[in-house]
Amino acid sequence: MFRNQYDSDVTVWSPQGRLHQVEYAIAAVKLGTATVGLKNNDYAVLVALCKPPSELSASQRKIIAIDEHLGISIAGITADARVLSKYLRSECLSYKHSYGSTYPVPRLITTLGNKMQTTTQRYDRRPYGVGLLLAGYDEKGPHIYKVEPSANYFNCKAMTIGSRSQSARTYLERHLATFNTCTKDDIICHGIHAIRSTLPNDELSKDDGASQLMITVAIVGKDQPFKVLTDEENLFYLDMAKKRGATMLSKSGRNDDDDDTPPPIAEDKPEPAGPRDPQVAVATMERP
Amino acid sequence: MFRNQYDSDVTVWSPQGRLHQVEYAIAAVKLGTATVGLKNNDYAVLVALCKPPSELSASQRKIIAIDEHLGISIAGITADARVLSKYLRSECLSYKHSYGSTYPVPRLITTLGNKMQTTTQRYDRRPYGVGLLLAGYDEKGPHIYKVEPSANYFNCKAMTIGSRSQSARTYLERHLATFNTCTKDDIICHGIHAIRSTLPNDELSKDDGASQLMITVAIVGKDQPFKVLTDEENLFYLDMAKKRGATMLSKSGRNDDDDDTPPPIAEDKPEPAGPRDPQVAVATMERP
Amino acid sequence: MFRNQYDSDVTVWSPQGRLHQVEYAIAAVKLGTATVGLKNNDYAVLVALCKPPSELSASQRKIIAIDEHLGISIAGITADARVLSKYLRSECLSYKHSYGSTYPVPRLITTLGNKMQTTTQRYDRRPYGVGLLLAGYDEKGPHIYKVEPSANYFNCKAMTIGSRSQSARTYLERHLATFNTCTKDDIICHGIHAIRSTLPNDELSKDDGASQLMITVAIVGKDQPFKVLTDEENLFYLDMAKKRGATMLSKSGRNDDDDDTPPPIAEDKPEPAGPRDPQVAVATMERP
Amino acid sequence: MFRNQYDSDVTVWSPQGRLHQVEYAIAAVKLGTATVGLKNNDYAVLVALCKPPSELSASQRKIIAIDEHLGISIAGITADARVLSKYLRSECLSYKHSYGSTYPVPRLITTLGNKMQTTTQRYDRRPYGVGLLLAGYDEKGPHIYKVEPSANYFNCKAMTIGSRSQSARTYLERHLATFNTCTKDDIICHGIHAIRSTLPNDELSKDDGASQLMITVAIVGKDQPFKVLTDEENLFYLDMAKKRGATMLSKSGRNDDDDDTPPPIAEDKPEPAGPRDPQVAVATMERP
Amino acid sequence: MFRNQYDSDVTVWSPQGRLHQVEYAIAAVKLGTATVGLKNNDYAVLVALCKPPSELSASQRKIIAIDEHLGISIAGITADARVLSKYLRSECLSYKHSYGSTYPVPRLITTLGNKMQTTTQRYDRRPYGVGLLLAGYDEKGPHIYKVEPSANYFNCKAMTIGSRSQSARTYLERHLATFNTCTKDDIICHGIHAIRSTLPNDELSKDDGASQLMITVAIVGKDQPFKVLTDEENLFYLDMAKKRGATMLSKSGRNDDDDDTPPPIAEDKPEPAGPRDPQVAVATMERP
Amino acid sequence: MFRNQYDSDVTVWSPQGRLHQVEYAIAAVKLGTATVGLKNNDYAVLVALCKPPSELSASQRKIIAIDEHLGISIAGITADARVLSKYLRSECLSYKHSYGSTYPVPRLITTLGNKMQTTTQRYDRRPYGVGLLLAGYDEKGPHIYKVEPSANYFNCKAMTIGSRSQSARTYLERHLATFNTCTKDDIICHGIHAIRSTLPNDELSKDDGASQLMITVAIVGKDQPFKVLTDEENLFYLDMAKKRGATMLSKSGRNDDDDDTPPPIAEDKPEPAGPRDPQVAVATMERP
Amino acid sequence: MFRNQYDSDVTVWSPQGRLHQVEYAIAAVKLGTATVGLKNNDYAVLVALCKPPSELSASQRKIIAIDEHLGISIAGITADARVLSKYLRSECLSYKHSYGSTYPVPRLITTLGNKMQTTTQRYDRRPYGVGLLLAGYDEKGPHIYKVEPSANYFNCKAMTIGSRSQSARTYLERHLATFNTCTKDDIICHGIHAIRSTLPNDELSKDDGASQLMITVAIVGKDQPFKVLTDEENLFYLDMAKKRGATMLSKSGRNDDDDDTPPPIAEDKPEPAGPRDPQVAVATMERP
Repeated sequence: MFRNQYDSDVTVWSPQGRLHQVEYAIAAVKLGTATVGLKNNDYAVLVALCKPPSELSASQRKIIAIDEHLGISIAGITADARVLSKYLRSECLSYKHSYGSTYPVPRLITTLGNKMQTTTQRYDRRPYGVGLLLAGYDEKGPHIYKVEPSANYFNCKAMTIGSRSQSARTYLERHLATFNTCTKDDIICHGIHAIRSTLPNDELSKDDGASQLMITVAIVGKDQPFKVLTDEENLFYLDMAKKRGATMLSKSGRNDDDDDTPPPIAEDKPEPAGPRDPQVAVATMERP
Repeated sequence: MFRNQYDSDVTVWSPQGRLHQVEYAIAAVKLGTATVGLKNNDYAVLVALCKPPSELSASQRKIIAIDEHLGISIAGITADARVLSKYLRSECLSYKHSYGSTYPVPRLITTLGNKMQTTTQRYDRRPYGVGLLLAGYDEKGPHIYKVEPSANYFNCKAMTIGSRSQSARTYLERHLATFNTCTKDDIICHGIHAIRSTLPNDELSKDDGASQLMITVAIVGKDQPFKVLTDEENLFYLDMAKKRGATMLSKSGRNDDDDDTPPPIAEDKPEPAGPRDPQVAVATMERP
Repeated sequence: MFRNQYDSDVTVWSPQGRLHQVEYAIAAVKLGTATVGLKNNDYAVLVALCKPPSELSASQRKIIAIDEHLGISIAGITADARVLSKYLRSECLSYKHSYGSTYPVPRLITTLGNKMQTTTQRYDRRPYGVGLLLAGYDEKGPHIYKVEPSANYFNCKAMTIGSRSQSARTYLERHLATFNTCTKDDIICHGIHAIRSTLPNDELSKDDGASQLMITVAIVGKDQPFKVLTDEENLFYLDMAKKRGATMLSKSGRNDDDDDTPPPIAEDKPEPAGPRDPQVAVATMERP
Repeated sequence: MFRNQYDSDVTVWSPQGRLHQVEYAIAAVKLGTATVGLKNNDYAVLVALCKPPSELSASQRKIIAIDEHLGISIAGITADARVLSKYLRSECLSYKHSYGSTYPVPRLITTLGNKMQTTTQRYDRRPYGVGLLLAGYDEKGPHIYKVEPSANYFNCKAMTIGSRSQSARTYLERHLATFNTCTKDDIICHGIHAIRSTLPNDELSKDDGASQLMITVAIVGKDQPFKVLTDEENLFYLDMAKKRGATMLSKSGRNDDDDDTPPPIAEDKPEPAGPRDPQVAVATMERP
Repeated sequence: MFRNQYDSDVTVWSPQGRLHQVEYAIAAVKLGTATVGLKNNDYAVLVALCKPPSELSASQRKIIAIDEHLGISIAGITADARVLSKYLRSECLSYKHSYGSTYPVPRLITTLGNKMQTTTQRYDRRPYGVGLLLAGYDEKGPHIYKVEPSANYFNCKAMTIGSRSQSARTYLERHLATFNTCTKDDIICHGIHAIRSTLPNDELSKDDGASQLMITVAIVGKDQPFKVLTDEENLFYLDMAKKRGATMLSKSGRNDDDDDTPPPIAEDKPEPAGPRDPQVAVATMERP
Repeated sequence: MFRNQYDSDVTVWSPQGRLHQVEYAIAAVKLGTATVGLKNNDYAVLVALCKPPSELSASQRKIIAIDEHLGISIAGITADARVLSKYLRSECLSYKHSYGSTYPVPRLITTLGNKMQTTTQRYDRRPYGVGLLLAGYDEKGPHIYKVEPSANYFNCKAMTIGSRSQSARTYLERHLATFNTCTKDDIICHGIHAIRSTLPNDELSKDDGASQLMITVAIVGKDQPFKVLTDEENLFYLDMAKKRGATMLSKSGRNDDDDDTPPPIAEDKPEPAGPRDPQVAVATMERP
Repeated sequence: MFRNQYDSDVTVWSPQGRLHQVEYAIAAVKLGTATVGLKNNDYAVLVALCKPPSELSASQRKIIAIDEHLGISIAGITADARVLSKYLRSECLSYKHSYGSTYPVPRLITTLGNKMQTTTQRYDRRPYGVGLLLAGYDEKGPHIYKVEPSANYFNCKAMTIGSRSQSARTYLERHLATFNTCTKDDIICHGIHAIRSTLPNDELSKDDGASQLMITVAIVGKDQPFKVLTDEENLFYLDMAKKRGATMLSKSGRNDDDDDTPPPIAEDKPEPAGPRDPQVAVATMERP
């Protein structure tokens, strides 16, 4: 009851010291489809669930490349996310122009937070209605950051946001200990397992065409510029994840060599410049 | 009940994380007459239903040419659409001036989205009350994009917006599989069939003069600058569509040569610079 | 009931996707006295009903000359119309200065529409409360456009706006077919008949002095700069219209030569530079 | 009842298409004391009723000189009128500076109207609360214009605004026919008679000192720069008006020579540079 | 009841054409202590009642010197008055700088009025809450002006504003006829008598120290720059006024020489540069 | 009841001509701890009561040095006071830079008042919520000014503001007559006595450590730059005041020499540059 | 009840002279986790309680380094704190650039206060929702300041803010007397004891991994640039604090040498450039 007297405007404090409009904007993140971010010692990976609004149209991009060393995955209002990604991209560009190097991830995230904060303190704006997972790689290694509409951000080992992300969170917490040392393929598979857990009946397993629920995977890391995988690559890893169950992944810290399953295609084929080698294919990075 | 406490302003979040004013603006799209966009491998086609407000006046233009490689079809508040089309046109012009080439469609649509987003975050504006279908052609082939008042946009294989567009959507989904490989004439006919399905009694079939419901077709594609067809051409294709039923179109992936129906006029006459050849006639493109 | 919750501001959408404040502004057009616009192959004609507020004062100008090739007739808030006419005039002047030619009518109307649109999207303005009929002539021939407070405009064959304009609309629709080919005098007479039909008891027929209801006629066309007729000319045509009944006008596509009525003064006298020759008299065009 | 929901702001339309705040501002004109404007073939005359707020203070100036060829008389909020008069004065000055001639009256009034219109369309202003009668003289002869808070203006033969002006209006309408041809003295007397008719008991006839109700007369015309008469001149004409009754004035189109009453002082004395000759005395025109 | 619906903002008209917020600001003048202004043929005099808020503090200055030829006396919000006096002072200074002479009083008051008017027409301001009496002297002689929060001003023979000023007004009206010809001392005494009449029990007569009610007198006139009298001079004139009763003052047009009372000190002592000679002492004029 | 309809905004007048928001801001002064200002012929003294919010933190500075010749003591919102003190300081600095001398106190206070007035007339600000006592010294001698949130200021002999200041006011009024001629030590003691009277149980007398209620004394005067006394000096004078009772102080106009109490330390020790000599120690004046 | 009528906006005063919106912002500080600041003669120490939102993410930084000589600890809205820390950092940088030295702490805090004050007086902002403890060291020694959303700041001996800080406050007050003379290690241990007292069951004692409640310690002082301790160092001191109970710490003013517990590692190992030597490790200070 009483609560709503203080939620008219982002500049109004409740007597309890809360900013209800900012809290409501955070609720918008829960309305977006889930996305997961996680990392091992060398790579940061984003996995997003894409639900095309109909058979006729492709889903909106959930993962957006920002620069060679970082990209974001979003949940919430897509249009707001695009404005923020445009801001990040232009910050990176101008940093590179000034200093000749990539923008250090922690400093970039601080800059983003400060920009977002202004929308929470001025009466003529509304807070951005989108949550971000940012995956980056710099000399400190891989990073996963979570950014909220409140302009809060968190340095994470693994994180998930969006609709029904609680199940993915549970998955991540359970397998968190093994992430650091697992292989690139395994960390991607963990991400896929986590995102699958947000689906009631594992709709991803249904093989009924491209207009169904899809996942998008992106990776950045050591000698690996940020890359949003192609549909073919996404399906390859979705398939791999089905073969390597979560328990199997977690059992072995480094299960690539001594695994019973046949060596995944990702391990023997990538060296030549095939479509599955993200490193080579990065020149196709869209610049929207 | 409760809902309406949070719909006073575009900068106000509801406790559920929704922006009601943005949702209401989307409702304005449903008040406009229907329009359809679809594409095959080489062409993107827009078909719009034009309902003149009275016998005395022509209908407002539902399809607006933007540049040689793209145009839009609208549903909703026409005045808002014109302002956006003016923006798109000037963006294309200045891009051409700077880079000597046409504005890549995906980047242009991102620019448009960012412009529209600002009206959803500032208290002194209202969101644009118009939906757009954008048909473009660049080195990646033909594109159909749908743009919403929320500043969301979707890359589509085929799409329809506006009043009673659900029937057209059903038509498109049913024949989607055959679009890629069908001929230019057939893809236009599909568009006409789709738009006719939004009319209760197929009013388009009534031959009672120009003040009746009309369709406008526009096309852009390989070696085909964006062209809004003339009234004569529109009638020609309307006639062709009546002859080639939907089922017939879908049966044959490439039914032009072996069709039982006599060769359509469009196929034997267009080469000379007649009024029906859109490619030649493009110099008449209105610049409003 | 419910409706009024969303009509406080021009930036507020109703849940149904309507902008009530814009609709209310359209209602202001209905409060103005009626005006009619129509055209034949060579001329566009405006006829306006002028009701002086009292015997002491002249009526406000309902027809305003903009440039040599166009003028407007208004219904609604006169002060708003004057601001728009000032804008149109200065646009034409600056176009002429830049390009050395008159502003093409369709492009000018688009420019006007975009200007008017801004008042429908910003919270600190109100939409203009006036409807316009614009009569122009360019290399495409004569034009009649209708412009609404919503910033919508329509290319018309004939049109009427203002108080009780429904009767004039009925008249125009009934005789629409014959307009194109009728003479200049006849098209003026049709306009007068149409406007007379909006008056309950044909008050125009009462010959009781200048302070009564009056009509103003304006014409633009081939070799005819935009001209607001003088009082003398207006009365001449009012008289002619009474003699040539509506049915008579419509019967004969070209009734000037074989008419039973004596040749109207307008046909035999205008050649010398008398006050009745609009073409010659155009130098007296007021520049308010 | 319902009406008041839409009168909060000048930018809010009522569902009937009315701007209540503008209408309320017009009501402010009725709260001012009456003023009258009228003209014959050569002169435009303003007559204003001045009611000093108390014996201690002079009344505010109801007639304000703008330029040599025009002046205004006001009813309503004096402070608003002064701001408008300052605007008019500076417009005239800058026109004279640019073109070396006086500002044509119809164009000046259009400029004024456009300035006033902005206050009726912007939410952070209020419409001016004053009505103006403007008397001017240019190459087209004398002009009387009425300007309303709505930014509407009317070209008038004679006009009256302000408190109880209905009686003056009746007087003017009754004698309108004779104005054009009557003498300068007679047209002034007609103005005085008109303004006297707005007073219940003809308080102007009471000869009880300067602190009583007073009239101010101003004149502009052929070879007569705008002149606000002195108190002495005002009393002279008040006296003359009492002698020449309204009926007498109207009977004779040109009653100066053959009148039975002795030739008014105004006719035989003015030539020498006496205080009664407005033309000579114009150098004393106040420049507030 | 109804009235209060239209008093929320200075830009809101009531249906009767009133601006309630402006009227309320005028009420603020009545809350200030009374002040009186009056003049004879050569001098303009201001008399103000100063009520120190407590024994500990001096009263705020009620009379403020603006320039050598004018000053103001205030009733209402002192802080507002100071802002206006600063404006007047800077206007006078810049006029003197440009033209080398003092600002003519009527033009200055017009400038002030226009400045004050803006606060009555803009929604983000409030009208000034102070009334002014302005005493000035220029080549036209002495002036007394009254300025209201509404930006109205009145040229006065004598005037009083502030709390219980009705009694002073009555006094002034009764003796108005004799002011012009009375001496400088007498016109001061009249002012003192007028201001005393606003006190219920003539508290000024109580001789109980400086913290009591006090008067301040200021004078400007022929060869007399604007001077706020010193406390000593104020007491001298207060004493003189007590000796010369109001009836006595009014009886004699020029009672200085043949008065029975001994010659006032003001008449025999001032010539040497004593503190009582306002003309000489003017160099001490405070420049706050 | 009714009152609260007009207290929403500082730009809203009540029908009685009051600005309730300004009055409410004045109430904020009463929420601050008391402070006292007083002066003798050569010195102006400020005494403030400082109540540290807890044992852990020092109290906020209640007395702020502005320039060598003046400082302020505050009651109300400290943050507002700091902003004003910053303004005063920068005004003094720029005056000194321009004219090479200290800013005359009365002119500075006028400048301050004008700055504060703007917050009482603009809708987007609130009045400052702090009262000031200003102690200064210039060629006219010592000054005590009181400044209110309403932008009113008063020239005072002695003054007190803040919580329960009525008792201090009573003390000051009772001993006002003796202030002028008493010594520097005595005038300080009077200030301490006055401030003690605002405490219910004379909490200042309790000798239980630094975290208790404390006083701060500041002095400015002849050959004495503005000095906030050190804690040691404050205690010295607090002790002296206890010894010299109020009655004793008032009895003797100059009681320093013939006092029975032993000569205060302040009198025999200050000459060497000890911490107790305020004149010497002024170089330590904090410049926050 | 009544209270809430005046809490809509930060520019609205309550009749009691309070700014409720500012008070509500202060409540936001109580929603943050607790933090403690304290100092001895040479060092200022900050201790903050960090509660990671989940096992997956690190907690947000509660202690932020500003410059070599100062840093802040926060409680409340982190995003607001970051904006303020960015401001402080840029102020310090520009001061260093201009003067070649570090910004004196008291002057910097005044600058911060003035910046924060503006958000409490302008209607289009909200007050910052964060409390700060600032620890700095300059030539006056170590400083602890507390800054509130109201822009108030306090110079403190020791202070605590945030959730359940009352217990820490009690701890600090009890041991306040011994702080000045205790060693660097002891003052850190006191801070840890204080912060532990805010936890119901001393959750810090549970040794169950890094995702649990953690403390962060920062120190600045003599020859000690501001340093946020590493996790390793934090654990070291947490361990030390457990060994040295609060009573033991307080008993001995200088208990390092004669303590029964074995010399803490911090005392014998720091000289070599090990990770535990904060002075050496300072080059790793994050610059976010």
